[in-house]
Amino acid sequence: MAHIQVPEGIPGIRSLVMYRPDTGQHLYALAQALLRNESPLSEAERELMATFVSSLNECNFCAGSHAAAARFLFGSEKELVDQVIADYRTAPISNKLKALLTIAKHVQQDARTVSDELVTEARNHGATDRDIHDTVLIAATFCLFNRYVDGLATLTPTNPEAYEAMGERMGTIGYVMPTQSLNDAIKK
Amino acid sequence: MAHIQVPEGIPGIRSLVMYRPDTGQHLYALAQALLRNESPLSEAERELMATFVSSLNECNFCAGSHAAAARFLFGSEKELVDQVIADYRTAPISNKLKALLTIAKHVQQDARTVSDELVTEARNHGATDRDIHDTVLIAATFCLFNRYVDGLATLTPTNPEAYEAMGERMGTIGYVMPTQSLNDAIKK
Repeated sequence: MAHIQVPEGIPGIRSLVMYRPDTGQHLYALAQALLRNESPLSEAERELMATFVSSLNECNFCAGSHAAAARFLFGSEKELVDQVIADYRTAPISNKLKALLTIAKHVQQDARTVSDELVTEARNHGATDRDIHDTVLIAATFCLFNRYVDGLATLTPTNPEAYEAMGERMGTIGYVMPTQSLNDAIKK
Repeated sequence: MAHIQVPEGIPGIRSLVMYRPDTGQHLYALAQALLRNESPLSEAERELMATFVSSLNECNFCAGSHAAAARFLFGSEKELVDQVIADYRTAPISNKLKALLTIAKHVQQDARTVSDELVTEARNHGATDRDIHDTVLIAATFCLFNRYVDGLATLTPTNPEAYEAMGERMGTIGYVMPTQSLNDAIKK
């Protein structure tokens, strides 16, 4: 049970943005801009970073839902997602993405440890300022989302189909504020 | 020097929202809603929480600027701010605020450790759902801001007067997106 009275049956951050929409709207708008607006990182890669950081923070709701979104967006390459969660250093991804995930990991643990060396390593594999910026902001943002969801002990579904449906919604319509009709459909 | 090319001479998060305004505008709007909209916690108390979490994360820019805002807003009680940073458990603040700062500390360290017992303790001292919600979201949000600022190694002024000026601005006009003219004034 959540620590505060949120709408019943609504999982994770969704229940919190309904509880306080005047802050929630900015959290959803941030997620939409950061994960869907133009970036040198693909939408799938950005969802993979969100999954990776949420997994390091052991936030089951965010890790499960963003992994589902990443699988949906990677399509035929969806096995990547679980390979990265298991060990990104041996996963079949580019050296650039590995270097960026290393930066994301440092941001999650202690952002002051993002060194010139780590940034140079990423640049040597082709990362630009925007790649580095977007990586740091995605990692930092999921350190917020993970804490918000778990700090208030929100509902975390255990049914894999629930996450698959969330992932498809996140991969298609993106991050839009919940409406009552949509929530009624989700609760069914 | 920052890890990416941000506007020269502009400190902290300000340089980052200028670098990427399409995400920055939502970060500022979130700060404004969370720290200035209606809440059972006063603006001064919310700035104190922001300072406390930034201090735990050892983010000198955020701790310095929000401490200055908290001092400005507490006015004649401004000594509280440094007493809380030194040891909130012995500072002359209410038991309710102490219990909420304990929750904020758990959110900063590992949000999954915010237990029913900690929440009950806060409620026993008069905390409501909104107090608890706002505390968790402020703590989580500063875990983002601190990481964004330090993960990209942004400019951190060392001059105390610079922070005092920031604190007064934050305590009066609040969190508004930087404009070129204002930045020219700040750089002088």
